Amino acid sequence: MTHDSQTWLALSGGVGGAKLALGLVRALEDSSRLMIAANTGDDFEHLGLTICPDIDTLMYTLAGLNNPETGWGRAGETATFMTAVAALGGETWFHLGDGDLATHVARSHRLAAGETLSSVTAALAQRLGIQADIVPMTDDVVRTIVETEGGDLALQHYFVREQCVPRVLGFRYAGGGDAVANSRILERLADTSLGAIIICPSNPYISIDPILAIPGLRRAIEASAAPVIAVSPIVGGHALKGPTAKMMLERGVEPSATTVARHYGDLLDGFIIDEVDEAEAAGIAATGTEVVVAKTVMNDLGDRIALAGEVLAFVERLRGH
Amino acid sequence: MTHDSQTWLALSGGVGGAKLALGLVRALEDSSRLMIAANTGDDFEHLGLTICPDIDTLMYTLAGLNNPETGWGRAGETATFMTAVAALGGETWFHLGDGDLATHVARSHRLAAGETLSSVTAALAQRLGIQADIVPMTDDVVRTIVETEGGDLALQHYFVREQCVPRVLGFRYAGGGDAVANSRILERLADTSLGAIIICPSNPYISIDPILAIPGLRRAIEASAAPVIAVSPIVGGHALKGPTAKMMLERGVEPSATTVARHYGDLLDGFIIDEVDEAEAAGIAATGTEVVVAKTVMNDLGDRIALAGEVLAFVERLRGH
Repeated sequence: MTHDSQTWLALSGGVGGAKLALGLVRALEDSSRLMIAANTGDDFEHLGLTICPDIDTLMYTLAGLNNPETGWGRAGETATFMTAVAALGGETWFHLGDGDLATHVARSHRLAAGETLSSVTAALAQRLGIQADIVPMTDDVVRTIVETEGGDLALQHYFVREQCVPRVLGFRYAGGGDAVANSRILERLADTSLGAIIICPSNPYISIDPILAIPGLRRAIEASAAPVIAVSPIVGGHALKGPTAKMMLERGVEPSATTVARHYGDLLDGFIIDEVDEAEAAGIAATGTEVVVAKTVMNDLGDRIALAGEVLAFVERLRGH
Repeated sequence: MTHDSQTWLALSGGVGGAKLALGLVRALEDSSRLMIAANTGDDFEHLGLTICPDIDTLMYTLAGLNNPETGWGRAGETATFMTAVAALGGETWFHLGDGDLATHVARSHRLAAGETLSSVTAALAQRLGIQADIVPMTDDVVRTIVETEGGDLALQHYFVREQCVPRVLGFRYAGGGDAVANSRILERLADTSLGAIIICPSNPYISIDPILAIPGLRRAIEASAAPVIAVSPIVGGHALKGPTAKMMLERGVEPSATTVARHYGDLLDGFIIDEVDEAEAAGIAATGTEVVVAKTVMNDLGDRIALAGEVLAFVERLRGH
């Protein structure tokens, strides 16, 4: 095992991705060699503050501050702010915990002073004692738009305010085509030390595709010598969290691990599916993607570390060690 | 008594002024006839938010949300935000309660969207069920600077961060000379219904002088037909709260009700001093200012209403009813 001479890059959205990211942090001897390229397509401006839900979930999860009940937000939160916002007639559809608010206020203040999102994220993560590198996919503004039967919705409006109810017609990533990829991610992708590119079990459409929508990032991933390994976010035809399966049905494809593999297509070198989907392994392998069947449902920290171990072992195998 | 056909204008800073303002609200049959011109000289930008300490203290006091222990802030607060700010290495010298933060976030958001401070203040006060009109002295930026032996300090830096320790050399009101007086205050001053201009027992240098530093406001007060009545913030040589007496000593004048009366000078038609300062009444009256001796220390709501009653009775007398 030579993991610790290697570096790593994970592509991640929020809750599901952060679980595997935490597993990787714990499974690696030196977690500072792990870079997590975070989706910023669901960032938004709310009450005048810049909210970065996926970065925050990653930070709180890796710092051990996350609320294990919800997956997002912080443990031990109070809600005095939201109660007061409601009394003032403000918008309450997006919950901001009192402690969580410190992150948004600090970030918004620093962005307004001219700092980049990368710089702010690195500073906040360092203050929280996080060794791994959480890096926004870009410092430019990319916004995921959910095209629904009822019209276009900004991601958080679709996700939180409308509770994923509107029927999805498609997605677009406003600003994605013109966004400049984060240079630190490009450096990592070009580095010969890079052991693997790990696509976390996040929603392909709203967590991973915004990252891949940045042309410079997609090209660099395709050009990288490191294998690309994804973990299926669909288990037994269902998403463990969120609307991935619903979105697949509405787009006319079967919610399955196979659909995820097809979606990523040639990008993938390896794919990890759950034990309950073992029957799909042969079909996916027939397309030229190596498949590993593993326990992918991460109920506790042990599961997260075990799945990370499967990912790292898979990489060893793909690299022919 | 014809109070209720009349309108009223109070000039106020924070804690002490807000106590009398609450008394006036309760003493008047129709508190919507009371306008409170609020000092905004101690407003400041903090963590990217616009904080208006005197407006907030007035709003919370009149809405019954204030913290009676401190005089500022809200009752029933939590401090989760500040704890999280500290963990992120942010500035913690100015305490922002979680519920209080809703006011700052809402205000900052609306100001950034182009609303005036007057409009934001009116909207927030209305949501809190306040009948009286809380009106910022101006929508322009005026900032009280405390000139100290250690250099110039923004008001909140002097007041909160430095705990009023630096020796005061003087004050200036940056932007005051060019600020446009709030038009609603000017209208009230020109209105023949105006019963009196009441200078609340606030700090003359840092709460009332910033208001009087706006040339248009000072001229309109001088030109108004209504009598100007002040309540002394100095009782028995001490300020009931804050650094008024200390500032007087450092500026080489005796901390006394007489010093306050001299400070306001010709502006005053009537002055209310505390019973313990009765010996000063004759001297002040000799300068042509009518004096009333009353209990001015407001320990409870009854005291606030009683002092407001003294003010209103004094007005009646001055107007010759």
